Amino acid sequence: MEQTINRGLDGVNIDTSSICFIDGAKGELIYRGYDIRELANKASFEEVVHLLWDGDLPTREQLDGLRSQLSRSFGVPSQVFDLLRSLPPGVDPMHAVTSAVSQLGALDADADAVEMDNVRRVGTMLLAQFPTVVAAIQRTRQGLEPVEPRSDLSVAGNFLYMLTGEEPTAAATNVMDGALVLHAEHGSNASTFVARATASTLTDVYSAITAATAALKGPLHGGANEAVMEALEKIGTVENVEGYVLDILSRPGGRVMGFGHRVYRVLDPRAVVLKEVSRQLAEESGEGKWFEMSLEMERVMEREMEKRGKQVRPNVDFFSASVYRMLGFPAEMYTPIFAVARVAGWMAHLYEQYADNRLMRPRLVYEGPRDKRFVPIDQRG
Amino acid sequence: MEQTINRGLDGVNIDTSSICFIDGAKGELIYRGYDIRELANKASFEEVVHLLWDGDLPTREQLDGLRSQLSRSFGVPSQVFDLLRSLPPGVDPMHAVTSAVSQLGALDADADAVEMDNVRRVGTMLLAQFPTVVAAIQRTRQGLEPVEPRSDLSVAGNFLYMLTGEEPTAAATNVMDGALVLHAEHGSNASTFVARATASTLTDVYSAITAATAALKGPLHGGANEAVMEALEKIGTVENVEGYVLDILSRPGGRVMGFGHRVYRVLDPRAVVLKEVSRQLAEESGEGKWFEMSLEMERVMEREMEKRGKQVRPNVDFFSASVYRMLGFPAEMYTPIFAVARVAGWMAHLYEQYADNRLMRPRLVYEGPRDKRFVPIDQRG
Repeated sequence: MEQTINRGLDGVNIDTSSICFIDGAKGELIYRGYDIRELANKASFEEVVHLLWDGDLPTREQLDGLRSQLSRSFGVPSQVFDLLRSLPPGVDPMHAVTSAVSQLGALDADADAVEMDNVRRVGTMLLAQFPTVVAAIQRTRQGLEPVEPRSDLSVAGNFLYMLTGEEPTAAATNVMDGALVLHAEHGSNASTFVARATASTLTDVYSAITAATAALKGPLHGGANEAVMEALEKIGTVENVEGYVLDILSRPGGRVMGFGHRVYRVLDPRAVVLKEVSRQLAEESGEGKWFEMSLEMERVMEREMEKRGKQVRPNVDFFSASVYRMLGFPAEMYTPIFAVARVAGWMAHLYEQYADNRLMRPRLVYEGPRDKRFVPIDQRG
Repeated sequence: MEQTINRGLDGVNIDTSSICFIDGAKGELIYRGYDIRELANKASFEEVVHLLWDGDLPTREQLDGLRSQLSRSFGVPSQVFDLLRSLPPGVDPMHAVTSAVSQLGALDADADAVEMDNVRRVGTMLLAQFPTVVAAIQRTRQGLEPVEPRSDLSVAGNFLYMLTGEEPTAAATNVMDGALVLHAEHGSNASTFVARATASTLTDVYSAITAATAALKGPLHGGANEAVMEALEKIGTVENVEGYVLDILSRPGGRVMGFGHRVYRVLDPRAVVLKEVSRQLAEESGEGKWFEMSLEMERVMEREMEKRGKQVRPNVDFFSASVYRMLGFPAEMYTPIFAVARVAGWMAHLYEQYADNRLMRPRLVYEGPRDKRFVPIDQRG
């Protein structure tokens, strides 16, 4: 019997969900009915968290309630900072994120119950603690002490504050907030899928999120905008862009990072929003070079792809690279920042998974011998 | 259009594999062509590791090579012991395992390359280090210092030695070795599947194994033999078994732990082997009560299931509970011991995954609104 094999789980529906709708053909991304382009410009990250977790945008009272819950949970146990200080200076920061999340689980005496009230409690804690952990990782890498969170700031504002110890400008907070909204959720991508699959054993929330960060670390997933920034740094000037792109495209299988997406056949709507953010930041930051280089790369790619009869457009990673750079982040921190945003989506999916769970146990089609006879070791060879 | 939904990924083939064949209808488990019943009685864990990783049983020279590689890697960095000591005494030991594996990744300067030679290097390290980590967790829980590994012992012997500081008997080592062989591999179960899905982002081996331990922790997966032992402890005597079983079966949805398996329709072949091991240990250990209770539970279940026209037989967890108890392990250590064995299988699957990878990105079928309009916060409610 010929068996169907779904490598990469292409086209396999693992469940129903009411969190996120992606129309790859139209280039649309919808969180619970709302278009991402509208949310990115009008809603705060906290509003979007409430939307993803509770099904609709919050009233003022609901938003105040969530904000006060979060601000009470920004702190993390001092053992986490001890762990971060014990890691080698050159460690990939995602190893540090994964280790810290697992440790938070080990330190929480009520980690393990997967009834909905405890799952929500842990989700709220983790959403509040991720920025604190990631900022502490960045500070530790710089040889600096972590900055205590401030309970009067938003998630985005507090994150920027804990990186520098200085209150961020309203403009920077706004850009950070928009970036968090854009990265908060994206259906059953690899890390979200891993979170759901892990939770399907009814393991605890910390373990499921630990698995998600372990997956996000991969260069085929969270690492893409870092690769874009590394390319931009290597290219160095607007003039060098064309030669760089043509060189890559001339190689067999050569791929320019930040272009194309498994889901979107046309433009990634998040790239549209981030392009405008990048344009504005370029005007304000005095670091416009990164945006100019990105524009040039987009222009060359469009021309070259057209010659080849292809449509390959910039994805979310392409413009987030220059945006994060102009906000002052080094490239190796891009994936941890992604995690700060995506924990919102991971948790929304875990609420669905725990509420109506079935253990994930797919199959592998065996291709090998079936009836070998055991031979004692001295007769092998 | 009606879409097929594969909840739990039932019947979905994610890839081909030449590691393990399970015939659930016949009750057969085959590692690369060899029947598990033959391997459990004749092959050492190290031989089975070579079989799973390299495709066939090793020659004497190959086995000596693997043993010497492993014995050089038994040690772990002292920071791991510091981390374990910093965790609360009552922590679920699987939180400690997951945290330690992630930390090992953070401490390995060459963690991240996923070329095959590095993947093999890390796999060999982890196979050697898992027993050391798990033994240290158990010692730390008892308020004792970790015992340094001994390079002259096998994986099984060394594991028992590091738990007590005393050289184990040949009989105990033999039982431990057989238990490791039986638990080494079982196709695309949830933790192995999570390891492969995580690795499909091309994240590093430590991250993939961290995700696997996070999944193994779940009570629907690794936690089952612990639940069996807790039930036996609660029941207390052979006389109480019948009342306990009948009480559970009289409740709606009541499930007796250790019976039935998603894959095996008849007897789990591992249960057959472990039943004999348990019988022998009962004669030798003077703790025969746990085996007698298990036999009685099997008898009552068989009778009751027959009345209901069902075939529900003991699974691998059912007899491993009494075996581990008679070896001296507390119930909360059963899942960490499972991890010590299963890292062999996880790594075999990671070798396949990295060698021919495709990012796993399944779909969720969206059931929700698509065209909500944004309303400013003060007009909501």
